[in-house]
Amino acid sequence: MSDINTHVLPGFMELLPGQQLEFNRIKQIILDEYQRFGFTPLDTPLVERSEVLLAKAGGETEKQIYRFMKGDNDLSLRFDLTIPLARYVADHFNDLTFPFKRCHIDKVYRGESPQKGRFREFYQCDIDVIGHNELSINYDAEIPCVIYSIFSKLNIGKFTVRLNNRKILAGLMNHLCLSEKASDVLRIIDKMEKISREELNQELSKLGLTEDKITKLLQFTSISGNAEKAIESLKDFDIDDTQYIEGVNELDQVTKLMKTMGVDANHFAVDLSIARGLDYYTGTVYETILDEHPNIGSICSGGRYDNLASFYTNEKLPGVGISIGLTRLFYQLNEIGLIDKQAKTIASVLVMPFGNEQIEIGFKIANAIREFGINTDILLDEMTVKKRFQYADRLGVKFVVVIGDDEIKSGNFIIQNMITGDKISLTFDDIASFLKNNIK
Amino acid sequence: MSDINTHVLPGFMELLPGQQLEFNRIKQIILDEYQRFGFTPLDTPLVERSEVLLAKAGGETEKQIYRFMKGDNDLSLRFDLTIPLARYVADHFNDLTFPFKRCHIDKVYRGESPQKGRFREFYQCDIDVIGHNELSINYDAEIPCVIYSIFSKLNIGKFTVRLNNRKILAGLMNHLCLSEKASDVLRIIDKMEKISREELNQELSKLGLTEDKITKLLQFTSISGNAEKAIESLKDFDIDDTQYIEGVNELDQVTKLMKTMGVDANHFAVDLSIARGLDYYTGTVYETILDEHPNIGSICSGGRYDNLASFYTNEKLPGVGISIGLTRLFYQLNEIGLIDKQAKTIASVLVMPFGNEQIEIGFKIANAIREFGINTDILLDEMTVKKRFQYADRLGVKFVVVIGDDEIKSGNFIIQNMITGDKISLTFDDIASFLKNNIK
Repeated sequence: MSDINTHVLPGFMELLPGQQLEFNRIKQIILDEYQRFGFTPLDTPLVERSEVLLAKAGGETEKQIYRFMKGDNDLSLRFDLTIPLARYVADHFNDLTFPFKRCHIDKVYRGESPQKGRFREFYQCDIDVIGHNELSINYDAEIPCVIYSIFSKLNIGKFTVRLNNRKILAGLMNHLCLSEKASDVLRIIDKMEKISREELNQELSKLGLTEDKITKLLQFTSISGNAEKAIESLKDFDIDDTQYIEGVNELDQVTKLMKTMGVDANHFAVDLSIARGLDYYTGTVYETILDEHPNIGSICSGGRYDNLASFYTNEKLPGVGISIGLTRLFYQLNEIGLIDKQAKTIASVLVMPFGNEQIEIGFKIANAIREFGINTDILLDEMTVKKRFQYADRLGVKFVVVIGDDEIKSGNFIIQNMITGDKISLTFDDIASFLKNNIK
Repeated sequence: MSDINTHVLPGFMELLPGQQLEFNRIKQIILDEYQRFGFTPLDTPLVERSEVLLAKAGGETEKQIYRFMKGDNDLSLRFDLTIPLARYVADHFNDLTFPFKRCHIDKVYRGESPQKGRFREFYQCDIDVIGHNELSINYDAEIPCVIYSIFSKLNIGKFTVRLNNRKILAGLMNHLCLSEKASDVLRIIDKMEKISREELNQELSKLGLTEDKITKLLQFTSISGNAEKAIESLKDFDIDDTQYIEGVNELDQVTKLMKTMGVDANHFAVDLSIARGLDYYTGTVYETILDEHPNIGSICSGGRYDNLASFYTNEKLPGVGISIGLTRLFYQLNEIGLIDKQAKTIASVLVMPFGNEQIEIGFKIANAIREFGINTDILLDEMTVKKRFQYADRLGVKFVVVIGDDEIKSGNFIIQNMITGDKISLTFDDIASFLKNNIK
């Protein structure tokens, strides 16, 4: 043995089996819901040509990217799932049917400075609907339906999907004659929840905004909550800008449709302070927060964009999508105690043959239980009785099936509930159905 | 648009939605079976410290590895799932329960020269059982039970799990006074099926083997087929070498136990020409072939090893495991026409509201169908009737639910079977259960 460092790299998440099971359970719920809404799962390489990934990127992204040469190839690890989607759609355009709905759940890489809750390798869970030339705004309303469905199933407390429309902000900037400074102003607005009102004022003043404009801006971005009322207020502002009017109408349409589609009005709200990705989103934008843990920030974000793949194709591909940063979300749910720590093994049942002669019947019983869809382990090492039950206990299985000489002779097998300690004696034929009824 | 190359990198697999669905279906069957046998799924980073990956490697591996610097860190992409497992077990030793059973299905990277059916990014599907200090040989028999179960479910034709034991080969080398040349001889034997008898003779002669020894060796490695008979033949050789005897006894035990555990004797065979990984495996070794497509080679291989993590820890960790190279397998199944090309979307049903007023009831119907576990898409773009059905057809959904004015007025909705063209008129309450009964 040498002194090789076996710890996982800083900024990379590695879980013990029990936590991994919980992580996988959450990932599966997200995937199931995506699929249930008709988003077909895609898979693309983790490695891309650097020219593809860097076509649009710059600044932070370029610094954070994992880039390397292999032979003559300039390669990089993807840092999101959107650019690979753009490349995929451009490359396979003729083989796809539009509107094209896909989901993609996999790892992406960003070499950020490691800090609490920030990861260099992390799962993103994305869905997008891509149209050819145009895409109905109805899809802007379907996306939050999927979010609503997922977070209702995840059972991690009350959540709110917050909506805005970038056209409203752009129109307001026009109206305030701030179009040239728009991206700086929006960047500051995006930080609104993280900095004090005073700091906000200062930063906006520095950009040269008059007090009058700052007041109007803050009045405006403070509009939030109930969709109908918020949209009333927006109309009341009486801003005569085409983009503004279009944005308000779209927001109106989307929130009305969401209600129609069955999203509980308590679970969404208009929030005009959401700007998000300054040069990417062009219409509806979403964020999702856990009401009891607003400091976590948005756990699911996205929006509408005019053109997915302008760097790779001349086809116009408008779309709308969202992403859940699962690794970060899992980390945070764990921090606030929302991750179950009970599970340790995938198996619910451990079959325990005492001696080699008992293995045959042990395997038959194990297979019968598996036929009922129950994951079942069988202990094939020789151990003392005490060690066997220690093993079962440490594994965390719910039931043990004991197979010794007596059991084989009598045809009755002891099933022990490892949580309550209760024992029951059953014939071969009854074991599997008993376990099925007693495992959730 | 620039002239960026959007094609997937050579040696990387990227699938269209329909093929991706088939790929995922196979992957899910493998994962389900692994879990059903109590192998807990693990996930480790794709990026490791180069010192970890290269502790043992050398030669080809080192040349093929994707290695790069990020800041001061010398990093590499993993080229298998075994080394990460070794590091994981060494690092988390105190938190694991032994025997430790884990499965891991994910991508690995090898920068091989791209050629037909060889991939630089590919999925491995691994299971391993790791003991602490010792691990019963019973687990050597459980592993082929899992293989048997998976390939029975995959329904890709008759297959055979071939077994050997490295101790038998090592003992034979001893007996023939070839121990010093053993690894060269075994390397040639491993190629046996790929080269002619004449070439085999030549290569062995070059190593300095007498004709007598070559004959004995070939006689020996030609033993194959029915386990009982093969083991009889092995005993008949009457070789008085401790390792040889141990190996034959182990092979005897493992094959007997496999029968006990319910593996159909038509699906496994002893094959003494299997050597596999010369310095890694120490006992039982496995390969799996499709009987009707032997030229594909082994589709699932593995074996027993004495010590998993000697480079990372002083704990002795014997284990046994196998790996399915899924990307290569999928490619080959596709080549021989065993991959279904029907599926194109994850959704079985497309709900089709004609107009915005129909969306509310459309969404209610879609959600009711989803409640039955059926993946359901809803068309939210405005299109002509013709285009709508073209879309449904290209998507490849099985059923379309039509929602127009007439349907809402009458309360009866048309369900169209997209394969047969049959139509049926049903009330809201009957749609979901009808679809459930008519989708496999």
